[in-house]
Amino acid sequence: MKLKRYNKTLDYSYTFGMYPTIELLRAKPDSVVKVITHSKLSDEEGSGIINALVEKHGIPLEHSDRLINRLSPKDICYVVGVFRKYYPELSKDNHVVLVNPANSGNLGTIIRSMLAFDFSDLAVIRPAVDIFHPDAIRASMGAIFSINFRLFDDIESYREGFDAHNLYLFMTDAQAALDETSFSPPYSLVFGSEPSGLPSHFGRLGSTVRIAQSGRADSLNLAISASIVLHSIYSRHNK
Amino acid sequence: MKLKRYNKTLDYSYTFGMYPTIELLRAKPDSVVKVITHSKLSDEEGSGIINALVEKHGIPLEHSDRLINRLSPKDICYVVGVFRKYYPELSKDNHVVLVNPANSGNLGTIIRSMLAFDFSDLAVIRPAVDIFHPDAIRASMGAIFSINFRLFDDIESYREGFDAHNLYLFMTDAQAALDETSFSPPYSLVFGSEPSGLPSHFGRLGSTVRIAQSGRADSLNLAISASIVLHSIYSRHNK
Repeated sequence: MKLKRYNKTLDYSYTFGMYPTIELLRAKPDSVVKVITHSKLSDEEGSGIINALVEKHGIPLEHSDRLINRLSPKDICYVVGVFRKYYPELSKDNHVVLVNPANSGNLGTIIRSMLAFDFSDLAVIRPAVDIFHPDAIRASMGAIFSINFRLFDDIESYREGFDAHNLYLFMTDAQAALDETSFSPPYSLVFGSEPSGLPSHFGRLGSTVRIAQSGRADSLNLAISASIVLHSIYSRHNK
Repeated sequence: MKLKRYNKTLDYSYTFGMYPTIELLRAKPDSVVKVITHSKLSDEEGSGIINALVEKHGIPLEHSDRLINRLSPKDICYVVGVFRKYYPELSKDNHVVLVNPANSGNLGTIIRSMLAFDFSDLAVIRPAVDIFHPDAIRASMGAIFSINFRLFDDIESYREGFDAHNLYLFMTDAQAALDETSFSPPYSLVFGSEPSGLPSHFGRLGSTVRIAQSGRADSLNLAISASIVLHSIYSRHNK
């Protein structure tokens, strides 16, 4: 097949660079179509890991500087993974729910923090940025390959599938502060999009929670808000 | 003067978009050279605030869609602030210290979190990304105009100027966890760059601290790490 520059209608996507490609090969080897390497790869730290994983899983390898230059969006990189998009199911464990995330970098950064703080299930409510966009994958540092994620058309369809989950809605005007809130499992941590946050009617779906702030800045970046919450919960159980 | 597209050798920089421009006009009106508006600005929420601030401070206003199109890096925006670079001094209060930050977006996001958690002084150790880059200003949402910042050639010159400050060095292999650490003011919270973090010899400069993590992800994004620390300290004093 002739590989195209990424767009969201393709049924495959790419990892650009060493770190996301290694994570892809480790976590989802069965989804990998091929790995493309640049002539300068052998100088890079990590090239031995790439070669070992490709060999272990019998993955096709192509050496082509031209193909990498054609597919890469901006910066040059020395290794590219090509993988078929896949659609995992969510577990019944605790979830992160992002309502209408609009920025690939924030989405990827949240996924990276999820893995760091041991959360493995992400629900995304449409309309939303493309979770398979190479910018999201890169910001996740490949953590996306180690979590479950699923898209929903609206919050109602999400709740129908997970009616045992207690919803905690992060809103700047909530009464309860994060540090005072106990989270009863199984729970869903629900975040709105920048810059507007969750619409106020979401407050009726569960308990609302705010992150204490000085009021000197208007708000926090979405990936920052979500990561502060994940860290707070993780550190309560892992002193 | 004929305005050029931004590069770091210029002695002026730009705010692109409504939010950073309003923050510039509010916090640093004396540094503003002019404000440039697009013919579509009047449709936007916030245009009344811009007009009132420009009038209050007697700031020159230019209407030019062409000039905005020429100066804007990517997305179209409807208002641009032009300001002279300025060089504030740090106070003797607690500091954030970033050693060799390499990403404009992360730098700006950290500044936004500083303001949200009531930290007002940022030291940046060179080599470092340009703090006046419009991408840093945009990621800060204009919070940069409300904090003090200063560049230093190395950590030694920083310490000479602030020898009363207790240094806390954030390193993934530190013994003490964030939640167990008391910070004695005045203090400096020191963070390394992605992906390598602080060099190990920095550990001798003060107390080392780590953010508890699952170990499933390799590390956290720099802006995430710094913001988690700022939130943790802020929320201890503001229950």
